[in-house]
Amino acid sequence: MRTVCLFADWDPKPGFKLGPKDIDGKLTYLGSKVWRHPRVKIVEKEVPKPGPTEVLLEVKACGICGSDVHMFRAEPDGYIFYPGLTAFPCTLGHEFSGQVVEAGPLAINKRTGLPYEPGEAVCSEEMIWCSICRPCADGYPNHCERLQELGFSIDGAYAKYIKVDGRYLWSLEELRSLYGEEKMYLLGSLVEPTSVAYNAVIERGGGIKAGDNVVIMGGGPVGILACAILKRSGASTVIISEPSKPRREMALALGATHAIDPIEVNAAEAVLDITRGMGAKIILEATGMPSMVWPDIERIIWEGRGLNATVVLVARADDKIPMNGEVFQVRRAGVVGSQGHSGHGIFPHVISCMATGMDVSSVITKKIGLDQVEENLALLQCNPQEVKVTLMP
Amino acid sequence: MRTVCLFADWDPKPGFKLGPKDIDGKLTYLGSKVWRHPRVKIVEKEVPKPGPTEVLLEVKACGICGSDVHMFRAEPDGYIFYPGLTAFPCTLGHEFSGQVVEAGPLAINKRTGLPYEPGEAVCSEEMIWCSICRPCADGYPNHCERLQELGFSIDGAYAKYIKVDGRYLWSLEELRSLYGEEKMYLLGSLVEPTSVAYNAVIERGGGIKAGDNVVIMGGGPVGILACAILKRSGASTVIISEPSKPRREMALALGATHAIDPIEVNAAEAVLDITRGMGAKIILEATGMPSMVWPDIERIIWEGRGLNATVVLVARADDKIPMNGEVFQVRRAGVVGSQGHSGHGIFPHVISCMATGMDVSSVITKKIGLDQVEENLALLQCNPQEVKVTLMP
Amino acid sequence: MRTVCLFADWDPKPGFKLGPKDIDGKLTYLGSKVWRHPRVKIVEKEVPKPGPTEVLLEVKACGICGSDVHMFRAEPDGYIFYPGLTAFPCTLGHEFSGQVVEAGPLAINKRTGLPYEPGEAVCSEEMIWCSICRPCADGYPNHCERLQELGFSIDGAYAKYIKVDGRYLWSLEELRSLYGEEKMYLLGSLVEPTSVAYNAVIERGGGIKAGDNVVIMGGGPVGILACAILKRSGASTVIISEPSKPRREMALALGATHAIDPIEVNAAEAVLDITRGMGAKIILEATGMPSMVWPDIERIIWEGRGLNATVVLVARADDKIPMNGEVFQVRRAGVVGSQGHSGHGIFPHVISCMATGMDVSSVITKKIGLDQVEENLALLQCNPQEVKVTLMP
Amino acid sequence: MRTVCLFADWDPKPGFKLGPKDIDGKLTYLGSKVWRHPRVKIVEKEVPKPGPTEVLLEVKACGICGSDVHMFRAEPDGYIFYPGLTAFPCTLGHEFSGQVVEAGPLAINKRTGLPYEPGEAVCSEEMIWCSICRPCADGYPNHCERLQELGFSIDGAYAKYIKVDGRYLWSLEELRSLYGEEKMYLLGSLVEPTSVAYNAVIERGGGIKAGDNVVIMGGGPVGILACAILKRSGASTVIISEPSKPRREMALALGATHAIDPIEVNAAEAVLDITRGMGAKIILEATGMPSMVWPDIERIIWEGRGLNATVVLVARADDKIPMNGEVFQVRRAGVVGSQGHSGHGIFPHVISCMATGMDVSSVITKKIGLDQVEENLALLQCNPQEVKVTLMP
Repeated sequence: MRTVCLFADWDPKPGFKLGPKDIDGKLTYLGSKVWRHPRVKIVEKEVPKPGPTEVLLEVKACGICGSDVHMFRAEPDGYIFYPGLTAFPCTLGHEFSGQVVEAGPLAINKRTGLPYEPGEAVCSEEMIWCSICRPCADGYPNHCERLQELGFSIDGAYAKYIKVDGRYLWSLEELRSLYGEEKMYLLGSLVEPTSVAYNAVIERGGGIKAGDNVVIMGGGPVGILACAILKRSGASTVIISEPSKPRREMALALGATHAIDPIEVNAAEAVLDITRGMGAKIILEATGMPSMVWPDIERIIWEGRGLNATVVLVARADDKIPMNGEVFQVRRAGVVGSQGHSGHGIFPHVISCMATGMDVSSVITKKIGLDQVEENLALLQCNPQEVKVTLMP
Repeated sequence: MRTVCLFADWDPKPGFKLGPKDIDGKLTYLGSKVWRHPRVKIVEKEVPKPGPTEVLLEVKACGICGSDVHMFRAEPDGYIFYPGLTAFPCTLGHEFSGQVVEAGPLAINKRTGLPYEPGEAVCSEEMIWCSICRPCADGYPNHCERLQELGFSIDGAYAKYIKVDGRYLWSLEELRSLYGEEKMYLLGSLVEPTSVAYNAVIERGGGIKAGDNVVIMGGGPVGILACAILKRSGASTVIISEPSKPRREMALALGATHAIDPIEVNAAEAVLDITRGMGAKIILEATGMPSMVWPDIERIIWEGRGLNATVVLVARADDKIPMNGEVFQVRRAGVVGSQGHSGHGIFPHVISCMATGMDVSSVITKKIGLDQVEENLALLQCNPQEVKVTLMP
Repeated sequence: MRTVCLFADWDPKPGFKLGPKDIDGKLTYLGSKVWRHPRVKIVEKEVPKPGPTEVLLEVKACGICGSDVHMFRAEPDGYIFYPGLTAFPCTLGHEFSGQVVEAGPLAINKRTGLPYEPGEAVCSEEMIWCSICRPCADGYPNHCERLQELGFSIDGAYAKYIKVDGRYLWSLEELRSLYGEEKMYLLGSLVEPTSVAYNAVIERGGGIKAGDNVVIMGGGPVGILACAILKRSGASTVIISEPSKPRREMALALGATHAIDPIEVNAAEAVLDITRGMGAKIILEATGMPSMVWPDIERIIWEGRGLNATVVLVARADDKIPMNGEVFQVRRAGVVGSQGHSGHGIFPHVISCMATGMDVSSVITKKIGLDQVEENLALLQCNPQEVKVTLMP
Repeated sequence: MRTVCLFADWDPKPGFKLGPKDIDGKLTYLGSKVWRHPRVKIVEKEVPKPGPTEVLLEVKACGICGSDVHMFRAEPDGYIFYPGLTAFPCTLGHEFSGQVVEAGPLAINKRTGLPYEPGEAVCSEEMIWCSICRPCADGYPNHCERLQELGFSIDGAYAKYIKVDGRYLWSLEELRSLYGEEKMYLLGSLVEPTSVAYNAVIERGGGIKAGDNVVIMGGGPVGILACAILKRSGASTVIISEPSKPRREMALALGATHAIDPIEVNAAEAVLDITRGMGAKIILEATGMPSMVWPDIERIIWEGRGLNATVVLVARADDKIPMNGEVFQVRRAGVVGSQGHSGHGIFPHVISCMATGMDVSSVITKKIGLDQVEENLALLQCNPQEVKVTLMP
């Protein structure tokens, strides 16, 4: 079968030291310190054979994620942008849905409690948590000490087929009657990024009560999907701050009640104005530039009359955020970091929301085939017009 | 001014002992043990004069509550139905909105942080919590040790004017632009019963996560309003079980996704069927007959595959509920009691929901004048057709 | 190696229907409906060989649990008392500690993140949760849909050696320096029942704040161990209600601040007296006779001035508890069921408490050898003198 | 009666603008921007007369707080150090206990539910929350929009008598039998600062589960009292980091299990070493120099294997803390601000802890009379030897 595979050279930067879980020449937790000269090739591979707990899926849809773009993007010195866990060469693609083709006898369908049967529509977690380390045993799989990642360190879904352990799969069959087959699979490929947003605002941010106000800083896919989740959760005002007009419009279509262009207006003032001076219960930092938006975030908290704001950091950034503790003392506020999408009932809640009307498929602005993956990985390095580009192999 | 006043005779049943907070001949915490031969009269009273922390309101709308009906309803032996705190004669009426006519200088508007000004549209809590006892100081005003109740032990709102301490008022001005004046006040009179429902399912029931299923047992006003709140909170399925067809239809119009007639179908089976066997995260007991619906409630929990169900008891009943602990052990479930509507940000959250589209005004099925209160108190003793009858003085 | 094995005859009662997960002639979820004429034999078995994720332990200590006693105890008609999951013949014993003898390369020690090495002191969960069903994936292993149980449906620890998947083991090495080897293993065999208590009062009961009062109904091992945990958690008063004097004394030695003999005094009155009328934040039902103690429980809640009491049902019982909803409404109280000991960080928290001074080893009142298991299983059917009888093979 | 009164000149710095709640010449929320040339005088005042809801207390003990010191301390340009709410001249003193001398008929004793009677031993909150603004109504009195403060903007307790509204008082009678009269009052004067610590680690920090590890950065009174609370709450290790040896020793005596001198050792390394690499569940920033200790805090979180750390900022500081979001994402951690001591049942929980053995009276290192207040306010500006200096008028 044809697969879209990323290659790069193992060429550690000076001073790089192999980490305790790194494997020389093959796997590292610090990608941008090691991998150089990334290139994408279409590679022919054997269709994998599922083991007793595994499932073979025919891939139906697979979105391109920002991290795919960052693995393919090189700095001027040739090193890849993406800083995290990577093992190349690797078939990319981790936001996917597919149809069960074959399943091992111990691959249990959580929907039925019975082994998976061919034909079942499913989507998959991307985080291959071990289930036996301390964080996994305690119920925190997003912080597995022995994590692997589909499409980063294990072959992913830019391919005709993919093999996944049944543990990580979730049935999409609830979506079939409302949406039909094609849209079910498109939505299925969005369950992973929607779960990243759900984990951020609901699990880590503590959720909201119907009638609360929220602010989303940044209209990338996660920010936009967070709008949909928070509107669904009963927010009175869902304010997105995002400079790109098409993205603001998409956010408004999917759940935002107000959209701000932070280039044109002061975001804090606009939020205080829209909320009649109350501010917001959740402020999601989804720009990746926390230091830049931080003054606005603190001003919303400081001047907003509502207490108990939680700032959720979901976008990754190496910044030093200039936090003023008094703001958080006087306003009874806090900050939490958010990582991952697994556990805590997140996937099934997202699927349940979709099955009852939360149709976020319009974030997919372009559908492509396998041969177009490379050009779109390049295109997305500079083009904010497309929100989600999705492969339908 | 004309007021609708309830009179009854202080005639304690044999064995009744004056409680520690009762006042002989005047006030008791056990109404049905003391008060006999209730009758309603229209009584002329002076327009009250607000003190420094008080506000004089012109009443704009005041709903009839089941407890109003129960204070007026006599058992065959002449004693009133209503078992709680009462001091007669008393102007009835506690689900009300009104316009500020005059305000003391220390009556602070929570919306502005400044003294109330004439013209402000407001609604009111019914529970006159003291703010200084241990439960009040700890943040639990619904369990005030020195509670008084508007329309039960203090003159209420079936009148042209009412005097209320500013502490218990909440501005309705957020509703004005969306709904206009008349509907603003009608909705305002529904904030109190909606807050009873909000306290039950959100504060005491712990709320839900978007994508959860819920079941409401009983389609009285609180049950129907709970449907609106839970749909707003993102529930995937909101199932109401209620024998009256018009009430089922109203619930469906206001947020229920499914309605069951428990006379026609087995409620537990229907819930399990609708939820694909998952059951419900919150089950609200709002029938007042918990023993009757309990077998269904436990079966939903026991057979439902979802864990962590919370049964919320909101309707009052003197029943012994036959609870089987194993059901709650095996399914990781629980039961909580719910009382009141004050504190915890409930009123402002309800108003915020209404201001952003949660229009529950259709629960008001009839509007009446002062002269019609008595006949409607009588009518509602036997007629389930009307959901909420509202006085517009 | 010699093992203590329970045999019984598969002889379903009239009307028994094989459940969906039962296996004819071998395994049932409803033991007392099927198994007849239990008898214990010492059986010679092969030392098991650990697979890649498994560990072979030399058993160092294994407590006798009430369920062991109930599996061996026959009703007059010959059916066993124990109502739950069972597959006979089966080596009994599930409250155990042991030393690693041999380990598969994929059996990871949560303490180190590396494969288990011979010599490590460990204890084990008893619930063999599958890790892949919906409850396990969501973080609720105590409610696994595909549960097996060590010493009930899989060979247990009344033996020289036992084989356990590494997933269920927790290192005891933290205890070694404080307690020395023998006591480390004795305490290790108590981690499982202590975790049952911890799950009940901390995880399910919501824990307490330092300065709260608590009541424990029933001084069996779980009740006594709950005293130790709640005292450790900062309770101001820990009141145990238990008719047996030696058990009351043991509870006092391990953390209870007050002990009541409910035969001699009214438990509710005593609790209200001791707590100066405040009542209790947590009331643990650990008697197995909830209907009998329920009037006291509700009176403590009703008359206690403290709000927010949580009744935790941990002991199993087939009762119909006569619950009065008003008590829970007026006092802002609730009831939860508790099952199991796995997940939620419970085992490592219990071990951490033991490692820093929570020495509960005195609940072990008798130490025996393999040959004495049968007579002690018989003795414990009627003798409340012994609290915990522990095998040291 | 004689009172210790602070005088200063209203001399706003250039650019200072009167705030919305400031009163020209009299009261400001920004003390250090306005008040100049502070001086302390002993002033004769009338014994105040309690109103209907008020209580007259004979002051028995009153601690000197850091903010007292900062009100008296001048910068080189003559402006006071203390940046917050102040109205001079004002009798200082807010950490106090006293005996009821006279009480208004509506001053209710939360202990009995009845009016206060002479002789009752009480302590007092310092925050005079209004009970009617939005934060107060919602249950957050520490964030009252109309706050006054005893000893800052209202006459405090460095006096023979003080008048306080009954709302803010809490009975100390629970302490009498264990401690006797004098120690009861000394402990009573410590309830306020202990409640600041309790609010920080329990209410805002979310508390701990028995068996958790915690770190306290800074051994001032709040840090030391936090050690006592967290040890009482069941922490396995309570690590204090503090350069002053006597303060470390006091912390060890009151609940810390380990003490670090951050001048001598790296605090992060020491914490990781003591906790066997696990890190801490709560890290309390009580130094007032958050930027300085932040690298250690983030390293404890980043390298600690335990997840879910909460950093609680309790000390005030105008710093920009250099926060790295990735640390909080990868380790599932968060930061919260903490302010105040009122509400949430904090005072009665602290008193309950003291009544059952949490004797923190040894933080009082010196007892003085009225005439020695001024010299000790000066002394404490530079002398870290004394932890708590307490006036016994």
